[in-house]
Amino acid sequence: MAIHHPSFGTLDDNRIIFFDTTLRDGEQSPGFSMNLEEKLRMAEALAELGVDVIEAGFAIASPGDFESVQSIARKFAKDGPVVASLGRANPADILRSAEALKPAARKRIHIVLATSELHMRVKLRMSPEEVLDLTTSSVALGRQHSDDVEWSAEDGSRSDPDFLCRCVEAAIKAGATTINIPDTVGYSMPEDMARIFRDLRNRVPGIEKVILSAHNHNDLGMAVANTVAAIQAGVRQIESTINGIGERAGNASLEEVAMALRTRRDALPYTNNIVSQKLLKTSKLLATITGFDVQPNKAIVGRNAFAHESGIHQDGVLKDASTYEIMTPESVGWTKNSLVLGKHSGRAAFRDKLSALGYTVGDNQLNDAFRRFKDLADRKKVVYDEDVVALVDDEVVRANDRVKLLALTVATGLGTKPMATLALEVDGEHRDGMASGDGAVDATFNAIRQAFPHEVALKLYAVQSVTGGTDAQARVTVRLEEDGKLVDGQGADTDTIVASARAYVHALNKLLVKRERTAPAEIQSALSA
Amino acid sequence: MAIHHPSFGTLDDNRIIFFDTTLRDGEQSPGFSMNLEEKLRMAEALAELGVDVIEAGFAIASPGDFESVQSIARKFAKDGPVVASLGRANPADILRSAEALKPAARKRIHIVLATSELHMRVKLRMSPEEVLDLTTSSVALGRQHSDDVEWSAEDGSRSDPDFLCRCVEAAIKAGATTINIPDTVGYSMPEDMARIFRDLRNRVPGIEKVILSAHNHNDLGMAVANTVAAIQAGVRQIESTINGIGERAGNASLEEVAMALRTRRDALPYTNNIVSQKLLKTSKLLATITGFDVQPNKAIVGRNAFAHESGIHQDGVLKDASTYEIMTPESVGWTKNSLVLGKHSGRAAFRDKLSALGYTVGDNQLNDAFRRFKDLADRKKVVYDEDVVALVDDEVVRANDRVKLLALTVATGLGTKPMATLALEVDGEHRDGMASGDGAVDATFNAIRQAFPHEVALKLYAVQSVTGGTDAQARVTVRLEEDGKLVDGQGADTDTIVASARAYVHALNKLLVKRERTAPAEIQSALSA
Repeated sequence: MAIHHPSFGTLDDNRIIFFDTTLRDGEQSPGFSMNLEEKLRMAEALAELGVDVIEAGFAIASPGDFESVQSIARKFAKDGPVVASLGRANPADILRSAEALKPAARKRIHIVLATSELHMRVKLRMSPEEVLDLTTSSVALGRQHSDDVEWSAEDGSRSDPDFLCRCVEAAIKAGATTINIPDTVGYSMPEDMARIFRDLRNRVPGIEKVILSAHNHNDLGMAVANTVAAIQAGVRQIESTINGIGERAGNASLEEVAMALRTRRDALPYTNNIVSQKLLKTSKLLATITGFDVQPNKAIVGRNAFAHESGIHQDGVLKDASTYEIMTPESVGWTKNSLVLGKHSGRAAFRDKLSALGYTVGDNQLNDAFRRFKDLADRKKVVYDEDVVALVDDEVVRANDRVKLLALTVATGLGTKPMATLALEVDGEHRDGMASGDGAVDATFNAIRQAFPHEVALKLYAVQSVTGGTDAQARVTVRLEEDGKLVDGQGADTDTIVASARAYVHALNKLLVKRERTAPAEIQSALSA
Repeated sequence: MAIHHPSFGTLDDNRIIFFDTTLRDGEQSPGFSMNLEEKLRMAEALAELGVDVIEAGFAIASPGDFESVQSIARKFAKDGPVVASLGRANPADILRSAEALKPAARKRIHIVLATSELHMRVKLRMSPEEVLDLTTSSVALGRQHSDDVEWSAEDGSRSDPDFLCRCVEAAIKAGATTINIPDTVGYSMPEDMARIFRDLRNRVPGIEKVILSAHNHNDLGMAVANTVAAIQAGVRQIESTINGIGERAGNASLEEVAMALRTRRDALPYTNNIVSQKLLKTSKLLATITGFDVQPNKAIVGRNAFAHESGIHQDGVLKDASTYEIMTPESVGWTKNSLVLGKHSGRAAFRDKLSALGYTVGDNQLNDAFRRFKDLADRKKVVYDEDVVALVDDEVVRANDRVKLLALTVATGLGTKPMATLALEVDGEHRDGMASGDGAVDATFNAIRQAFPHEVALKLYAVQSVTGGTDAQARVTVRLEEDGKLVDGQGADTDTIVASARAYVHALNKLLVKRERTAPAEIQSALSA
């Protein structure tokens, strides 16, 4: 039984729509904020991955959010995924979403409104009848600006079933084309999904004309199983994020849902557009951008997910990989860490490698990146794909910086007071700094603060080596906080202290950008659908 | 309907046994190896957490494994959890388990044997009848040495249902008291659990006399939901690990299963002995020992799991926490990061704090730790609980080191060649080293290698700040590999380079210990039940 959808045309009954909310639910969790450039790169990667809908942001939340949604809408002005913007059930939010989405070839206005007794009483301070009326009026307004409107019942899984049915019916009558029932607080179990969606399908008139959607949080570790159960109960859109990031314990992880569907096709006879071979690459891009690697034992994309590939050999696997592998590492994008470039590699080889890794860079960026590559190749015996990725990422994020690191000298040791001297360029002006500290990194950060005075809190400092081996590049993440605003900076270098200085300066540059934006605090309350 | 169990006596029908395999399945995954001291500390923490059974290791795997199982058995010689040792279905394995377990007050011999067509044919090269006979003879042998015998059907979830029933019947007849059906490859969905266990309960004679057990892997992200589904299908023992560590994508996470049972008591009316308030502490101890923090969005124990606690405030939560919280942060052990000690704190306050944090240290250890605490307090404005934990952990693991770091001087910067000079004490002898490198850390490691020549591969280098703020301690993890043996070292210091040197020297000490042990490669093949 096929269904007609304004953005997708005729859809087979077994087709699953992947709605990705990495850039909205994922991005709004502490420490995972991304700047415009980073969001655009993620959006591009998500499109290549085969995601059907990209939720690009919450347009009214701040001018920065509006700009992100609009820029992603522009990026997909000709084709590409449906671009969605979230808003609350009021005219201002909906009109702001509509405006930001205007450039997109296919767009979706996403409206969220709480339907649980607790949320209506405590948060909305509205009666059920008011919520019902608002459902109708907000969806109708959304439809004036987009044929594709999604309506979400916030805290839907804890809502009264009868009232939820009435709201869904109202939303459908007003023109909603997708009905999403989020498990906002991550309270559900698979049997709850089955009950909720079967109930809606049995009781709500017109339900067969819309796409049902599930949005599951992982607070009890069951987001993926709940999502699969929802599909079995008739849901045809699943909302998820790369690496399972998102509010609190995060959302259902896209890569796990996608591979459950693929691996268990015997029990789950559904189709989707995800290119599973790009899962690892997309996961790694997000880790690079946010500075958070997944755990080694993260399913599909963790370093140990196919552990016999990387060390401990297993008798069974050597005899027949399927004894312990239910999917091949290659099917999700793992390849052997290939030795790729060395100090004798030329510009053409480097450009080829960049393009193989999925980067398209302009001539200026290529020149800068190539110079840094040669510098790295001089210091490092072999340059791996991951080194190149770190190096290019470093170039891209650093293009428009107001603060630049020109020079640095550091001395430290056991029994001595660490000290650092350095030179910065701030808006074109040269500034010197010198300071001691509790450690070499602390001294370096103090010297930066001396050269460019500012008051921020260091919330996170983390170092990872990009590849194995003693000549590996270090990748440092620094998280700074100012007035509740969090920014993450990254820096890569073979020297940890230099990488730390770069990361701090990077974070500082992001903070300077963020200062120019505002994000009203009250908006945060609606960001958790 | 109560059941009688040799180790637990009469058990109510709704009582769930928590079987923890952090020290066996968890410990054998790449990078998560622990030394004896670390295993004993984890075992103690698991006992405090209220775990019913601790799988202490695979006794025959190596002399080190045997020693670990035996030491944990000794630790619980009077009371405490049941101590289990895994072995394959052969006399040598079973007798080795029995010997290692001898000191324990309550012990369990755990026997694993594959029952899937693929594993029998490819890995065991046995006929189904041979597997059936071996089930009977191995369980019978086990029962000669322990009243408490668990039999596991490796790859049970992919086994022929009829054959699985016959094997389980044979195991019960031979005297098994717990029957475990592992989802060895993480292939199952919740409905499979329901089918498998209902089938066994309906068809196998005598099944009502034994405890059924589930052991789920997370390759498709469904380990927790599968475990809950297994309980609903009649399973009364669940096998899990702290932080969900384990082979490949790991096992069902203990904290998620425990909190699902607690939070959803409405649908899951079961009891267990887990003290949920100790979940966070146990998780953090494991992270400290292994050097792997969980992801920020890890359910229950991740930094963002109760994110509104730490930054982004949410309108709803301020009005009523239950709008977005289905459990309180306190119920799993989160507290506000309490400012505890400063430079004026005395020895008594320090000892009190240690005991509040759950450490019992001897006078010598206290003196050493107190000296380092005063040193730290001089350099750091405030000393948090986490600083004290890092500092004491550092003391404990460093007691018997053969290589010690005496002095270190490092110079580095942008545009200069990093260099390091240092002094080591190796088995009491003074040695100097000097080297340059690609970075300050690389130069330091090279200088160590110059002073104490050795050939190992650096597999991981990671730095985390123990607490926020610019005067935070850095905690460095260094993973070294030699002949397939992996060791992790940790070091903490306010200076990252000094912490790195400490971590490398720590790893080196562990490697020297490991060199004295052997672990036959073929054993690894059986380690994946």
